[in-house]
Order: sequence, then C-alpha cells, then structure tokens
Amino acid sequence: MAKAIFYHAGCPVCVSAAKDILNLIPENEVEVIHLGADKSKVKDAESAGVKSVPALVLSNGNVLHINFGASIEDLK
Amino acid sequence: MAKAIFYHAGCPVCVSAAKDILNLIPENEVEVIHLGADKSKVKDAESAGVKSVPALVLSNGNVLHINFGASIEDLK
Repeated sequence: MAKAIFYHAGCPVCVSAAKDILNLIPENEVEVIHLGADKSKVKDAESAGVKSVPALVLSNGNVLHINFGASIEDLK
Repeated sequence: MAKAIFYHAGCPVCVSAAKDILNLIPENEVEVIHLGADKSKVKDAESAGVKSVPALVLSNGNVLHINFGASIEDLK
C-alpha cells in the first residue's frame, strides 16, 4: 500500500497536529514532509490538492486538511 | 487508553472523511458519533471544542477539525 503523506510547515498548529496524527496512524503508513524545510515539495503538495497545512494526503488521493496552520500560498 | 471520538453529521464531506480516517485508525481506538442522528450529543461535542464536523476529538483532549462539512451551530 502507498503511504499517506503528512505535510506540515513547523508551525505550532502543525506540530501539535503532527504529534496527534502520528500517535494514531502506524508509523510505517505515513511519511512526514516539512514544507518549510523542503520548499521543493511545495509544488507536489499543491498538485495533490493541499490548500493549507497541516494536511494529510492519503494513498487514495483524498486530502484531509486538519485544523489550519498556514496557507500553501504562504509557503511558496 | 480512552478512545478518540469521531463526530460527523452524515454530510458527504463527513462520510468521505470518516471512511478515510477509519481506514487509518484502528477501529477499537475510535468511537463514531453521528450528530445528525443523535442531537443529544451536540452539546458534548461543543464542550469538547468541536466547531465544525467532521472532527476528531482525541483522548488527550485535542480537537482535529478535518476538512469542513458543517458548522456545529447548524446541527443544534
């Protein structure tokens, strides 16, 4: 099974949500990408439909926007 | 460990998110409550900090608002 991808940007909302989500989802089923630290992935995230972070892109292509930390526009 | 509670209201956004979340979280760790079908729980959800559904209230008290289906105000 393809992994889910958790995109975040190091903001407090992101870090808190990341901790919670990673407690719930088995670690081997999710990849964590820090868009603040790896700007080259912002485009991938946007293509996947991510509008804001933190967000979880599932292996079925669905995007779960979790709370609101920062707009993807602000990460470019 | 206390269970997480997934609140939803049967809306399309809710049902889609519910399916995705329940695929990710082991079934025995989450309780699903349909606020449209069980209005008496709306107050509990609101007290827990739920502003909109779908939302996941974690055993640590954190609330993850996932996408946006309906405001809690509209469920009263």
